[in-house]
Amino acid sequence: MKIITLTTDFGQADWFVGAMKGVILTINPAVRLVDIAHDIPAGDVAAGAFALTAAYRFFPRGTIHVAVVDPGVGGSRSALAVKTSRCLLVGPDNGVLSLALRREKIRAIHRLENRAYFLAERSRTFHGRDLFAPVAAALSKGTPIRRLGPAVAGFVKLAWPEPTRTGDGLRGQIVYLDRFGNGITNIAAEQLSDGLWGRAVASARRTRFPLETHYQAVASGRPVAVIGSTGFLELALNGGSAAGKLGLKVGQPVRLALRRERHVP
Amino acid sequence: MKIITLTTDFGQADWFVGAMKGVILTINPAVRLVDIAHDIPAGDVAAGAFALTAAYRFFPRGTIHVAVVDPGVGGSRSALAVKTSRCLLVGPDNGVLSLALRREKIRAIHRLENRAYFLAERSRTFHGRDLFAPVAAALSKGTPIRRLGPAVAGFVKLAWPEPTRTGDGLRGQIVYLDRFGNGITNIAAEQLSDGLWGRAVASARRTRFPLETHYQAVASGRPVAVIGSTGFLELALNGGSAAGKLGLKVGQPVRLALRRERHVP
Amino acid sequence: MKIITLTTDFGQADWFVGAMKGVILTINPAVRLVDIAHDIPAGDVAAGAFALTAAYRFFPRGTIHVAVVDPGVGGSRSALAVKTSRCLLVGPDNGVLSLALRREKIRAIHRLENRAYFLAERSRTFHGRDLFAPVAAALSKGTPIRRLGPAVAGFVKLAWPEPTRTGDGLRGQIVYLDRFGNGITNIAAEQLSDGLWGRAVASARRTRFPLETHYQAVASGRPVAVIGSTGFLELALNGGSAAGKLGLKVGQPVRLALRRERHVP
Repeated sequence: MKIITLTTDFGQADWFVGAMKGVILTINPAVRLVDIAHDIPAGDVAAGAFALTAAYRFFPRGTIHVAVVDPGVGGSRSALAVKTSRCLLVGPDNGVLSLALRREKIRAIHRLENRAYFLAERSRTFHGRDLFAPVAAALSKGTPIRRLGPAVAGFVKLAWPEPTRTGDGLRGQIVYLDRFGNGITNIAAEQLSDGLWGRAVASARRTRFPLETHYQAVASGRPVAVIGSTGFLELALNGGSAAGKLGLKVGQPVRLALRRERHVP
Repeated sequence: MKIITLTTDFGQADWFVGAMKGVILTINPAVRLVDIAHDIPAGDVAAGAFALTAAYRFFPRGTIHVAVVDPGVGGSRSALAVKTSRCLLVGPDNGVLSLALRREKIRAIHRLENRAYFLAERSRTFHGRDLFAPVAAALSKGTPIRRLGPAVAGFVKLAWPEPTRTGDGLRGQIVYLDRFGNGITNIAAEQLSDGLWGRAVASARRTRFPLETHYQAVASGRPVAVIGSTGFLELALNGGSAAGKLGLKVGQPVRLALRRERHVP
Repeated sequence: MKIITLTTDFGQADWFVGAMKGVILTINPAVRLVDIAHDIPAGDVAAGAFALTAAYRFFPRGTIHVAVVDPGVGGSRSALAVKTSRCLLVGPDNGVLSLALRREKIRAIHRLENRAYFLAERSRTFHGRDLFAPVAAALSKGTPIRRLGPAVAGFVKLAWPEPTRTGDGLRGQIVYLDRFGNGITNIAAEQLSDGLWGRAVASARRTRFPLETHYQAVASGRPVAVIGSTGFLELALNGGSAAGKLGLKVGQPVRLALRRERHVP
């Protein structure tokens, strides 16, 4: 049984996700639908791209991932299906697929232009329902990707800000705030030098976050930095919201450096 | 495999939807459950009716749609199952099914009175779990609708405010605000005269919204009117929330008229 | 087909629930996933425990319930799988399973220590994905619970405040606020003396809530107490939010006593 995942900014207050599912099940009643996230902030392509990237690789091979955060719907942006060595991805060509694609061996990219695979009546404001849902359903039934439209060479890529090296550490920034108010940064675990492990401190907005292995390594309510479950450095308050209490925001600079004295946990 | 959809105001913070699904799967483990929307504003029957209407017709024939926005639960309102030429609908007789039924050829309406199809222990505050879920599950197993209770002739209908014609246009109102802050009106695409297409402007709260084909036909942050994906005129801000920024509300009057000079996109 | 339910505080804005589902489906593509609730307030173990308790017993026998409200993730709290005469429960040993277990005949409790059943790469901040999801998937494929780790005798129990008897009634407290702003108390229907039925009044924060059978037994906007669908006394406003309008909070004392004069509905 094929799986189609959905990542959108459509929320659960309206019928948008439900309508997409109805379209898919009408075309392929045997497919399995899985929600990744639907409360992506409205129109926040970067947040949608990050959420997709964090989840898609935990699904079985051959899964079809549909991501619709699409503020340019109906305009000139094109629409894509991408086949990689692991999975298929479907969505607008606005960068929402691009962070996941950084990790993938791309086999084919096709622009969605074959109207035979769209809903017969197509709106210009809801391609999730009228275009991406039926295309994903067609793929789940085995339609070859080349039938969907012409092959293209490239796609829109979101800028990914690589951290920079400083004297004894790294300078990066916050790229995502999660529901718990944790600030996920662009500093990847594998970018930490051996010396930093276990004796580093992150700083942002004049707060110092000692690097520990888990949230409760510090007292309740205290700042802490951890390598989070996405593999990136994350700024948190143990048992609280760092975004809420300290005003962390996406784009804020974060510095990771050696602690003066070694911390004994 | 039969499909049961759920449209409720139960949210995702509590267990209400989960309990309904447990009841259904206990009775019919083979049914497929699909969420249409659960964050309908608490007790807002009109919003629930609108969401159901916007989504239900995208599901396969024979789908069973359960809608529970039910502020009168446990009181004197009755409960219904309705069979149409396309699908089955189940819910309280308070109007929540009535907008969808405007589009349907109704075959039978039955009042849910046969306690054999309810949970054995029935609360007076949660008919979603105790009555609508088991009845939908019974229908999904092929129980004939007439077993559920007596046939009735009518049902509670929500008032649907039809727009009125003016000199060169239409006067309507906002009937729904979606997650993006778009104000969906009661003015249907097919009610626009040929002359209005491509040269009309909507006005509400002293803001003018030129009628375009899609949101990004205007500059970022600017007001725009489009024919939305439900087939109704919709007032929006490109990339912003018209409800949030302009204070659009359900019930607000909207006027659609000819633009003085023809707009060249 | 086995069912796995999920009760978490992970929300729908991020990818956490989606990643858990991907992990489960990779291990057991044939399992059926059902969401109980995901908007449990962040880190609120008691709310998660209450939601699980209110829903789990409506699922078929043999269902596997995963509950992850886990502020101590990565620290010293252990992780459990529990087998009862009805179902299996999986989660952190922090009390989140304990309210459901009060109702169950426990057959076996095992600490999750066998890394063969965890994801190969395990974070210290997201055991929902790395530990609870793969363990639940293993159980759904028939892995015996004893393989998961050593049997243990006990588990962390949340304090459940039993109401106390007063002269003519009961004194309890609010234990949960639901989406509608209803205050669910710890006073169970079966604790009401015969004399109280139909002639009692609850009081909290100087507001009197007459005990009725359903919300609409009082005028719109008026306070009312009912036996809610969880079997507990519940304080509400008909058509409004008692939490929002009257400031009800978890922990607030509630008194249930005889009404002076008998109420005629």
